[in-house]
Amino acid sequence: MANSFGTIFRITTFGESHGVGIGVILDGCPAGVPLEASAIQAALDRRRPGQSALTTPRQEADRVQVQSGVFEGLTTGTPISLFIANADQRSDDYAHIAGAYRPSHADYTYDAKYGRRDHRGGGRSSARETAARVAAGAVAAALLAHFGIEVKAYVSAVGEVEVGKSYEELDLSLIDSNPVRCPDPEAAARMEARIRAAQAAHDTVGGVVTGVATGLPPGLGEPVFDKLPAVLGHALLSINAVKGFEFGSGFEGTKLPGSRHNDEFYTDETGRVRTRTNHSGGSQGGISNGQDVYFRVAFKPVATLLQPQQTINQAGEAVTLAGRGRHDACVLPRAVPIVEAMTQLVLADLLLRARANRL
Amino acid sequence: MANSFGTIFRITTFGESHGVGIGVILDGCPAGVPLEASAIQAALDRRRPGQSALTTPRQEADRVQVQSGVFEGLTTGTPISLFIANADQRSDDYAHIAGAYRPSHADYTYDAKYGRRDHRGGGRSSARETAARVAAGAVAAALLAHFGIEVKAYVSAVGEVEVGKSYEELDLSLIDSNPVRCPDPEAAARMEARIRAAQAAHDTVGGVVTGVATGLPPGLGEPVFDKLPAVLGHALLSINAVKGFEFGSGFEGTKLPGSRHNDEFYTDETGRVRTRTNHSGGSQGGISNGQDVYFRVAFKPVATLLQPQQTINQAGEAVTLAGRGRHDACVLPRAVPIVEAMTQLVLADLLLRARANRL
Amino acid sequence: MANSFGTIFRITTFGESHGVGIGVILDGCPAGVPLEASAIQAALDRRRPGQSALTTPRQEADRVQVQSGVFEGLTTGTPISLFIANADQRSDDYAHIAGAYRPSHADYTYDAKYGRRDHRGGGRSSARETAARVAAGAVAAALLAHFGIEVKAYVSAVGEVEVGKSYEELDLSLIDSNPVRCPDPEAAARMEARIRAAQAAHDTVGGVVTGVATGLPPGLGEPVFDKLPAVLGHALLSINAVKGFEFGSGFEGTKLPGSRHNDEFYTDETGRVRTRTNHSGGSQGGISNGQDVYFRVAFKPVATLLQPQQTINQAGEAVTLAGRGRHDACVLPRAVPIVEAMTQLVLADLLLRARANRL
Amino acid sequence: MANSFGTIFRITTFGESHGVGIGVILDGCPAGVPLEASAIQAALDRRRPGQSALTTPRQEADRVQVQSGVFEGLTTGTPISLFIANADQRSDDYAHIAGAYRPSHADYTYDAKYGRRDHRGGGRSSARETAARVAAGAVAAALLAHFGIEVKAYVSAVGEVEVGKSYEELDLSLIDSNPVRCPDPEAAARMEARIRAAQAAHDTVGGVVTGVATGLPPGLGEPVFDKLPAVLGHALLSINAVKGFEFGSGFEGTKLPGSRHNDEFYTDETGRVRTRTNHSGGSQGGISNGQDVYFRVAFKPVATLLQPQQTINQAGEAVTLAGRGRHDACVLPRAVPIVEAMTQLVLADLLLRARANRL
Repeated sequence: MANSFGTIFRITTFGESHGVGIGVILDGCPAGVPLEASAIQAALDRRRPGQSALTTPRQEADRVQVQSGVFEGLTTGTPISLFIANADQRSDDYAHIAGAYRPSHADYTYDAKYGRRDHRGGGRSSARETAARVAAGAVAAALLAHFGIEVKAYVSAVGEVEVGKSYEELDLSLIDSNPVRCPDPEAAARMEARIRAAQAAHDTVGGVVTGVATGLPPGLGEPVFDKLPAVLGHALLSINAVKGFEFGSGFEGTKLPGSRHNDEFYTDETGRVRTRTNHSGGSQGGISNGQDVYFRVAFKPVATLLQPQQTINQAGEAVTLAGRGRHDACVLPRAVPIVEAMTQLVLADLLLRARANRL
Repeated sequence: MANSFGTIFRITTFGESHGVGIGVILDGCPAGVPLEASAIQAALDRRRPGQSALTTPRQEADRVQVQSGVFEGLTTGTPISLFIANADQRSDDYAHIAGAYRPSHADYTYDAKYGRRDHRGGGRSSARETAARVAAGAVAAALLAHFGIEVKAYVSAVGEVEVGKSYEELDLSLIDSNPVRCPDPEAAARMEARIRAAQAAHDTVGGVVTGVATGLPPGLGEPVFDKLPAVLGHALLSINAVKGFEFGSGFEGTKLPGSRHNDEFYTDETGRVRTRTNHSGGSQGGISNGQDVYFRVAFKPVATLLQPQQTINQAGEAVTLAGRGRHDACVLPRAVPIVEAMTQLVLADLLLRARANRL
Repeated sequence: MANSFGTIFRITTFGESHGVGIGVILDGCPAGVPLEASAIQAALDRRRPGQSALTTPRQEADRVQVQSGVFEGLTTGTPISLFIANADQRSDDYAHIAGAYRPSHADYTYDAKYGRRDHRGGGRSSARETAARVAAGAVAAALLAHFGIEVKAYVSAVGEVEVGKSYEELDLSLIDSNPVRCPDPEAAARMEARIRAAQAAHDTVGGVVTGVATGLPPGLGEPVFDKLPAVLGHALLSINAVKGFEFGSGFEGTKLPGSRHNDEFYTDETGRVRTRTNHSGGSQGGISNGQDVYFRVAFKPVATLLQPQQTINQAGEAVTLAGRGRHDACVLPRAVPIVEAMTQLVLADLLLRARANRL
Repeated sequence: MANSFGTIFRITTFGESHGVGIGVILDGCPAGVPLEASAIQAALDRRRPGQSALTTPRQEADRVQVQSGVFEGLTTGTPISLFIANADQRSDDYAHIAGAYRPSHADYTYDAKYGRRDHRGGGRSSARETAARVAAGAVAAALLAHFGIEVKAYVSAVGEVEVGKSYEELDLSLIDSNPVRCPDPEAAARMEARIRAAQAAHDTVGGVVTGVATGLPPGLGEPVFDKLPAVLGHALLSINAVKGFEFGSGFEGTKLPGSRHNDEFYTDETGRVRTRTNHSGGSQGGISNGQDVYFRVAFKPVATLLQPQQTINQAGEAVTLAGRGRHDACVLPRAVPIVEAMTQLVLADLLLRARANRL
């Protein structure tokens, strides 16, 4: 229960890390959206392991198969099934955790909830599940593109290393110009060094991803419980390792007086309603106001360490555990396409939901 | 659409600020929960305007009527309807905004979305709607109490004034000992001064509410999209004026190395599985692990100012607007019961959902 | 759980027969629909008790109060709350059933499900709940009217007395010309006699309501599980006392060969696609094809009898029970507006859902 | 939208007749249910084409692959993905319908709804989609078996040929003893002759399937909109070609007086509450009462005829069309496992939903 997300544009993901494969069914995509498998594959390639020296050396091709819902290059309005076969699993790497609970992993809580779990590679709790989200996000992106809406994300902090500029001061076309996916080359170099230091110490490091959506019309977001930031927060907080979400002025904004925080309205030369500042982050009363939507997402450091840790096994006995296998020291670069995908899925859904607002 | 929240324990709220009244229908509460109207009223009294010199002088009794779903002091399993009649509206206070868009309010976005709005008192976008949530939260609290689960929230920052202690270092029984609802008397005094300064300046101030849930069994939270923090974040980000949510180590935790962030498991003397630290905030893989769930919620400064602001009217023309009426300079003290209510609603729902996990 | 119906145009009903009142929250109605309380009241007046000698003499004014969601005569897009206070309850009439299970009533199953029940007047299981549906149906009708869609229902059988004509052979403007709500005056007279005979025998009688929806555009109905007839069947089978639903050719159509059952397509003089026959009942593949949607709904005889019956009490002991109070001998005339309302609610929802089909 | 069914035990199906394959994701199955692929395959084998001389000679192996959600022979509580690759498609058989609308098929309505369609083999509107339902139904059956609930269905009428006995008078172990799936051998022989006559005439024939569920505890079914018969009716009316649903006494029951229709309660020798008759069909007030649930489902004659028919093409021009390919003259025998599957899915869901009723 709860492997689905979305109200009209709705996805359901399935699959375990070391089973036959993983996938997603997307129900509710309108008919007539141009959709190429290559666009979905390109999104997956940005998330897949082994794409740079900064990520896990685990090689997974993550080839997507479009199984339904597309005919002659256009969506048909029927469910779109996207399947990614698993490969290169080394389940033996996980034999040592079959009976032990990795610290800050989901091993214990899955056992506590279900009474059993598929321990191989983390099973369903593996971040591998997010590949299915990225695939679905590419379909959402195709729909959004039709309406001129674009979503971009980038790494704005790795550990204590921060970009120090707002998204408006950066050239977002540079995001993929370095393996960190930070559009500030100088900061990217420092972040890369920080990740290499973690790798060298057999340790891990967290960070922050910043996301921006542009081109939204006013009117997206459903009062009162499905406000745009509420649904977006839900989506992003459902990503593995995420610990926080803030939009617009966020936590820092709580320190401003209202007289400085308020965004003054004006009408621009084209007659469009705009605001002079955008502390609101593009959403007022939970509804988009036509300004950019921007937000920050906190990722904790990766829990799997290549160093010994104290924990317990299923019998409750103390054991020592050391991560084996091939793991990321920092998930941030690979988290960028996941943040984009979840944002795209949220906006596609809110876009379709907004159609019911008026006669 | 989206005036409902929850999957099994599900609420639907309705009503405008200056209409007949507001209310909530709660569907899915199990039969047999002892429920007194006085408990609901007590929760509402903590939220209502006019309760202290720090809040709006607007007096609203906010008397709740239990209309259905309770028989002889116990819930019956049928929908519980809670209604709060409106009173003391001074709609004239709002005549000046009928055609103007208040900065950082929902006036413009409601018009953009629906083509019209009930402008009186903010209509549906008014924070008055949260009274219905607080009423429903009291029912959730009654259910949770049966299972030994308790939720508390308090003001941990007003503007730049912060408590500076973790929830574990505070005596949470002191939350209601001062009008700020901060359990640290010394910090509370500084916060009160900060709010009075804002009032004096005809300005407003934001802040942070910290929440804690204790007594949760392991197993609450539904992978992969309805992880406990994801649903909780959704709930809290749907509250008016909220700009951010973080749980456990949150944004600060991104700066720790994994070796310090991980929570080591051990078995305590009673045989219960515990962790030595709790950076996870009581949730691993999105499922409760039996430790305390704690989190922080950012509230922006109140948008209604008793000073002139530049904005536009419906015709797009520049106008000057100054707030009239009776408004809070800081919503934080009154936000505490709302944060508690949304948390209670989330936990009640996840508790019932978890029943489907096993044979 | 499950006191809501609909996906986008969604209602939630609440209230017990002898509590404070009953009501409905309608979420998802588009903004801008002209809505007068008098139209809702008119629908309720067709359902209310005491309207003719054929129905229960119980007098209930069933005055509706519009509590939210309407401003200056138009819907605002926010939840519409409709409340009907209870009056003229004689709970004493039900004291005798507090501990006994009326045959073919919901007394036993509510106790079995919830462990308790509000026995007064049948509590939540009372057909009084359908007044809330009728009120909501009137809002749906206002929306449908904007798109030229109209729904009518009438009594086509009372016990073994049948109309014997198809809906196309009848003048549906005559439905309200007699207390039975049968548009065939001759059949109506025989039906009225049949109901009076049941009354005289202290017995009850069932029957059939036929419904017709005209003016539907092609394209309503969502494959594969929310086909138009599937959702309509769900709605109508949720009405108290309903035992069957068939649409188009129905059960009789199973006896036709395919060569006679198929509906031949042609293009009429205006260029519109039509079918020469309509065994399909306006739905093919679960999607409206632009022809009339028509269907039949079976109502069992009323279970409350004014004669002694054998049954058991909560302790499982045999007891004799005789209905007291003021009950209908035949619900069919009052069921007509309920069938119309549920059909209107289904079509309004499918109409809004269909907007997501295409770019 | 609407390719999902169920609330807690929830399926989502996907796939077109002539695409890569079809499948289903089942979310919400509790952990710990013993599940063998062979049980799913056995259910599919009862539905697959080519199983007897009475069905289409089209040969499809319909081999199911269990892709996720099962580990070491038990369900894990995570989504169960079942995939069936397509084979033996002869898309050329359908080239003639690419631009033409087959009478009483979904060709026209899909085009009207979506603006395009995958015409090959009927695409998504093909009854092939029901194979996915049957696969999921086998999982539901495994869950129900744990609670002693069993579902059986059989053909009770083919055209005008009827069984003439109630389900209680038949030996349901004989259902699969003949290719018609009618447990009355004498009636089965007449039905078989009726189907062969239709085949010989290049025509088709409809009929009725009767279903029975035994072993239900009291308490399943959610008032007021998700009454057991309402959800069951929804499920069964969503099957291709279904035109009607009735349960218990159904349409015939409308002719009985209440004094004969009511089901008298008594306590049997084991202390269990029972009814002496069962006109209610095991449901009172929409909640199971512990008696058998039984119902009838009407299937129209197959629309694809191997004889010429008049219709129009996409341009609205009159054309003559004759079915080619390999089609059933009567779907009833193959509909039996589909009716069983949908019933199993409904009961599994209501069983899990009922867990939220009480403390």
